[in-house]
Amino acid sequence: MTNNRKLFSVLFLILFNHSSYAELRGTGDLGVIIEREPAAIQIINTSNNKALSRIANLGDLSHASIVYSRDARYAFIFGRDGGLTKIDLLQDKISKRIIQAGNSIGGAISQDGQLIAVSNYSPGGIKVFSTETLALIADIPATYGDKKLSKVVGLVDAPGQKFIFSLFDAGEIWVADLKDINHPKIQKFKNIGKQPYDALLSPNGRYYIAGLFGDRGLALLDLWSPEQGVKRILPNYGKHDEKMPVYKMPHLEGWAMAGNLMFVPAVGQHEVLVINQNTWQLVKRIPVIGQPVFVMARPDGRQIWVNFAFPDNAQVQIIDAKNLAITQSLTPGKAVLHMEFTPRGEHVWVSARDDNQVIVYDTENFKELTRLPANKPSGIFFSSRAHKMGL
Amino acid sequence: MTNNRKLFSVLFLILFNHSSYAELRGTGDLGVIIEREPAAIQIINTSNNKALSRIANLGDLSHASIVYSRDARYAFIFGRDGGLTKIDLLQDKISKRIIQAGNSIGGAISQDGQLIAVSNYSPGGIKVFSTETLALIADIPATYGDKKLSKVVGLVDAPGQKFIFSLFDAGEIWVADLKDINHPKIQKFKNIGKQPYDALLSPNGRYYIAGLFGDRGLALLDLWSPEQGVKRILPNYGKHDEKMPVYKMPHLEGWAMAGNLMFVPAVGQHEVLVINQNTWQLVKRIPVIGQPVFVMARPDGRQIWVNFAFPDNAQVQIIDAKNLAITQSLTPGKAVLHMEFTPRGEHVWVSARDDNQVIVYDTENFKELTRLPANKPSGIFFSSRAHKMGL
Repeated sequence: MTNNRKLFSVLFLILFNHSSYAELRGTGDLGVIIEREPAAIQIINTSNNKALSRIANLGDLSHASIVYSRDARYAFIFGRDGGLTKIDLLQDKISKRIIQAGNSIGGAISQDGQLIAVSNYSPGGIKVFSTETLALIADIPATYGDKKLSKVVGLVDAPGQKFIFSLFDAGEIWVADLKDINHPKIQKFKNIGKQPYDALLSPNGRYYIAGLFGDRGLALLDLWSPEQGVKRILPNYGKHDEKMPVYKMPHLEGWAMAGNLMFVPAVGQHEVLVINQNTWQLVKRIPVIGQPVFVMARPDGRQIWVNFAFPDNAQVQIIDAKNLAITQSLTPGKAVLHMEFTPRGEHVWVSARDDNQVIVYDTENFKELTRLPANKPSGIFFSSRAHKMGL
Repeated sequence: MTNNRKLFSVLFLILFNHSSYAELRGTGDLGVIIEREPAAIQIINTSNNKALSRIANLGDLSHASIVYSRDARYAFIFGRDGGLTKIDLLQDKISKRIIQAGNSIGGAISQDGQLIAVSNYSPGGIKVFSTETLALIADIPATYGDKKLSKVVGLVDAPGQKFIFSLFDAGEIWVADLKDINHPKIQKFKNIGKQPYDALLSPNGRYYIAGLFGDRGLALLDLWSPEQGVKRILPNYGKHDEKMPVYKMPHLEGWAMAGNLMFVPAVGQHEVLVINQNTWQLVKRIPVIGQPVFVMARPDGRQIWVNFAFPDNAQVQIIDAKNLAITQSLTPGKAVLHMEFTPRGEHVWVSARDDNQVIVYDTENFKELTRLPANKPSGIFFSSRAHKMGL
């Protein structure tokens, strides 16, 4: 009987444990909040606005970003220290973790969901891994000039199983076609401008735009017409009054595309620029309270939410895309770092680092719905990104 | 000991059964194929292009459509017979099923994911249900004139917790704001044209466009400027040569929006019309092999896939959105009824009813990847629709 009791206990334990991690959970309404200090992530649910779990031991998350597997079950975290971690959102645990380089800046997932690419500062280049196993599949060093290696920035995925990225030191844009993974085809665009420091892909995957730290204007590649090469647009972009120090170079991923219009943070100015996407000409300058950092469109494009660099980083302003004017100002908390909209735009989640809080707003009436505790929260990434290009 | 053995057996059985349905599964890469005869659905996976399960006892699926819960775990099926069924994609079973009316034509899920609306022919109106329980929450009869009830068509969800729909018999468009579910606000637009028979919402949720069976042209409502009322656009749309019978009125949900352009099936003509979305003027007529039914854009907008009415329904043609010309023709099988792109557009699934097959293509090189058996397949719906407006 004693043995039987033990066996019962074991069976009950298996059953109980199995139940506990096998709680059935759709993955369409999940997300991840990056906590900087102490470094960890929270897995959250956007249907009930609740935290589900916290996962630590993820290395340096001071400048981390995330992509999702195509089933929205796994999040891949790119850490500043070269760490690449695969998180299982269904089991609230680390599925796999590697240190893939010494210093990395971001990553992307291929159109078919099979490949993870990471862009590295040192050694300069991109490395491509299996999303299944995190095994190295391809190594593409960013060689230029006399066998030098360039830092790589602005890495995005694009239609046709492509990865696109910029070489900071070389002033080049590379398009890597990995349809045949054993024979990657790389198309190089040279002399695109000095020191590309970041880039974005338009939501439809057509335009790749790189910001230039060492040059005026932006470098534009139309992927529907690559034979036309890289063009310079907005030649005055980046010019700024020397008396106004730039507190933070704006992230290009944080530019908003809404209909025909692109909303862009002016560098060092208290302005959001509105650009016509057909002509790439400036349509309007909208004055805002500070130096904009992220300029993000609600999924329907009707509202543009803007956060700011220090010392105006306790505020968020909202631009109406119809009137091209500010309609609302909010003060979510100290040091607003990031914003993420729910997939159909009814809510937005805002991280306030120095208040250790993430605030959820109703975007229709701007009412605060809830505040979630988080340790120095920065990036917020929802699983619906699994289905988007270039993020 | 005998008792103990029984208890063991029971425990093992619980454990085994629990494991079998608790297989962990992300819901981002799932989908549903409607089988008309015998009526059933298949749950499929778009990562490995496989069928996971078949579910029957769903009533009349001859004109069925589907929406997804915001966690992408549940599919809601709207049957022609007024059936509303909630399917649990994680447990491969019916979670709940009701007969909500005598004759229904489609449905929508609210922006916040809490409400399911169904549009009914008889009794004419919409009914709103809880997505959680399928309990009736609101009943909005489509009353007009002398207490008459109109058939309701073209029901879509829109930003701001709205449902929009058209009254076929009354010639009206109604916008129902359900932000306060106890006090629905309904805005009625009258005299919008005779017999609206279907409608679409532009992907950004801004434009509601209804086709008119009894009038020329289309009825357009700009939801950013509702005070301007409903306008008539494309005044020649619907005119056709009387000698060419119309084999099938095109579905408006099957219109493609790509960049500034809208691709529209011409009624009764062997043409796809290209419309400029800024001016609502006709840009080009593209000749095609037959009367187009669905005209669908690959998610990046570069390709437009077209299927056709009888007798040309064994074919599919692909228009290049850059050159506005046909670049490819395929013959997937007999009676192609529907097409659905994977979320990032690398594949497309095509149903060939009379071949009892669903064919999966690589959209980059048009190679056939696989064929799945299916009984008279019609609609194909992937779970990424959970995150889209107006579908």
